Amino acid sequence: MSDPIDQARALDAADPLRDYRAWFELPAGVIYLDGNSLGALPKATAERLAQVVHGEWGEGLIRSWNSASWIDLPQRVGGKIAPLIGAGADEVIAADSTSVNLFKLIAAALHMRPGRKVILSEPGNFPTDLYMIAGLEAQGLATRRLAPRDNIADALDEDVALLLLTHVHYKTGEVFDMAALTRAAHEAGALVLWDLSHSAGAIPVDLNGSNADFAVGCGYKYLNGGPGAPAFAHAARRHHDALQQPLTGWMGHAAPFAFSDDYAPAPGIGRLLTGTPPILGLAALEAGVDLIAEIGIDRLAAKSRALSEFFRECLAEHGLELDLASPTDPARRGSQLSFRHPQAYAVCQALIARGVIGDFRDPDILRLGFAPAYVSFADVAEAARHLAEVLENGEWERAEFQERAAVT
Amino acid sequence: MSDPIDQARALDAADPLRDYRAWFELPAGVIYLDGNSLGALPKATAERLAQVVHGEWGEGLIRSWNSASWIDLPQRVGGKIAPLIGAGADEVIAADSTSVNLFKLIAAALHMRPGRKVILSEPGNFPTDLYMIAGLEAQGLATRRLAPRDNIADALDEDVALLLLTHVHYKTGEVFDMAALTRAAHEAGALVLWDLSHSAGAIPVDLNGSNADFAVGCGYKYLNGGPGAPAFAHAARRHHDALQQPLTGWMGHAAPFAFSDDYAPAPGIGRLLTGTPPILGLAALEAGVDLIAEIGIDRLAAKSRALSEFFRECLAEHGLELDLASPTDPARRGSQLSFRHPQAYAVCQALIARGVIGDFRDPDILRLGFAPAYVSFADVAEAARHLAEVLENGEWERAEFQERAAVT
Repeated sequence: MSDPIDQARALDAADPLRDYRAWFELPAGVIYLDGNSLGALPKATAERLAQVVHGEWGEGLIRSWNSASWIDLPQRVGGKIAPLIGAGADEVIAADSTSVNLFKLIAAALHMRPGRKVILSEPGNFPTDLYMIAGLEAQGLATRRLAPRDNIADALDEDVALLLLTHVHYKTGEVFDMAALTRAAHEAGALVLWDLSHSAGAIPVDLNGSNADFAVGCGYKYLNGGPGAPAFAHAARRHHDALQQPLTGWMGHAAPFAFSDDYAPAPGIGRLLTGTPPILGLAALEAGVDLIAEIGIDRLAAKSRALSEFFRECLAEHGLELDLASPTDPARRGSQLSFRHPQAYAVCQALIARGVIGDFRDPDILRLGFAPAYVSFADVAEAARHLAEVLENGEWERAEFQERAAVT
Repeated sequence: MSDPIDQARALDAADPLRDYRAWFELPAGVIYLDGNSLGALPKATAERLAQVVHGEWGEGLIRSWNSASWIDLPQRVGGKIAPLIGAGADEVIAADSTSVNLFKLIAAALHMRPGRKVILSEPGNFPTDLYMIAGLEAQGLATRRLAPRDNIADALDEDVALLLLTHVHYKTGEVFDMAALTRAAHEAGALVLWDLSHSAGAIPVDLNGSNADFAVGCGYKYLNGGPGAPAFAHAARRHHDALQQPLTGWMGHAAPFAFSDDYAPAPGIGRLLTGTPPILGLAALEAGVDLIAEIGIDRLAAKSRALSEFFRECLAEHGLELDLASPTDPARRGSQLSFRHPQAYAVCQALIARGVIGDFRDPDILRLGFAPAYVSFADVAEAARHLAEVLENGEWERAEFQERAAVT
């Protein structure tokens, strides 16, 4: 391989997505490899938010629930996310947080499988997925069962109401075989709920092609919806009529403005709503989703694979042999590379001090995300050089240790 | 009384809060009497949001969870709401929607009163309060009991786990006696949860002086947090250690970044958190709360009473005798006046066509809110004149009917 920087220049020049980088506000002097944790700010989002704040809230006031169609935002944004995850526009809604949506759908699955109480997942799944099962367990309504990912199929039996898995693992980036595991769950009479937090907007997902039942996902990672963006929830159309979830707030009512004392669920996906939709967050999320949809998920996934493979080549060029926690086959991982290192935290801090922002996952994972909408091959080559220097000169030993909250 | 408009000029000139109106962006040609549904936009909020978007998200990216203290926002904003509702700073947290917070606290109360399943409320309470009880009822965990407000005390018995009431009624503005009803509930061995959606930021509330157990409330009305702003949840300090709620998301974990498989609740009010905090919404809410706190709740309540009483005087001056659904004693109502009229919907539409924005509540309520931070006495005099003209010349009969979603 020629000099990585030269190579990167050529790759960037040939990159069909190269112009999209300018659509984002990115800080000078920073190589951002943490879009898997918080996506960067699209310039269009800043403009859209200013319009929502001044025009719709300030000028339109309460009238904007109708005139600016605020009331339709959960369905509209959900409908735009749908094609990114292989779902119909009427099968996805943007609402609440991933955690709250997990609760709704786990509870809905329990209701649809009377006599079965087990929610099956894997140890090491993203914590909030496991904790939301625990919440229903503490209510006496569910039993949590965890099986290692290689034994998931064996753990499916007639007690399992729901298989809850994260499609792309947050630590390693490994991708579950959605179609195969969905089939296995269905054969055991269970439903399946896929957490797409690290998938949506990063790699193609085919919920309907896999015959999936339910899904949730995060708005602030590859969908670039902003910090703490609303999440999304999916339910296959065939389940809509039977869908009963316990967070029966007024926005999920069939006629919220009739103000009746008794709850009646809205038809369709709308019954997954609970409280008043968060308009600022939804407007930002819509702008982010619009951008991802315009670029196209296949092109994004292709570039993501190219970026991460190029990073590994650069590491090899620098003579670095790191312990890759992610699958070596790019088709089997999401848009990230994770490396095990006994001093992963310090290495991450040393990189951040150099302006290369990745993140650390307890206890020993250095996680680098390659958000293809705005990360360039030059970024990748530079990041590899920085990492090589940090490791070679022991810089990480001098890195400042500090407690760090990092929202995955 | 002299000419209402002259009178209004004198009242505005003497109003100690008159300068705060300029702190808000208000559209020209509009008299806004719907701040009880969506508070107006504080200019400081627009500035703060621009800073959060460009500076903290765009420039700071993931680092802002620490450097901009995003991670502390739920507690910080909750701590600022606390003095407005008579609670300690460590007893309130900003999170999720009012509906979702209701679910958490109703479930927590059921957990604290084993053997009791009844949640007592009143018919005609704001629907989402009743619907969230219904959600737990559908889970088999609760039994909903409704008693008319004059018979609440009689309906308290040894089966009641929780009394759930809205402090200021959304339709009539009538205020419950918080201290007396809390005492009655406690005497029956029940806990009490107050919905402060139409109280917080409008009238003084004394949760701790009333010995209340729990409260929730809305961020987008008198707290001016913006459309669909995050809500707040309160739990008295004495209950924190026993507090167990089912929406056990990772942000309510004692150590969220340890990523352990098992849930352990955070100490204190933090265990009411579920998912990742919505930063845009929380930042806007903080700016709104800051403004209300600066003006001061006692001054706001005093002006609110003066505004609504002046409105009634203006109506009398116009010879209008309307059917007041709100208490005549301003100390017994929130910051609104509601009138019953068989054509309330059409009258409301005709007022809106004239630029006077109030709202309609099914089936026959015209509701006018007097948000004292930015409504002037001149607004009130003009609104009364418009209402008189609409009613006198039958203008409402020609008002355009249209379905209207109006988020209370």
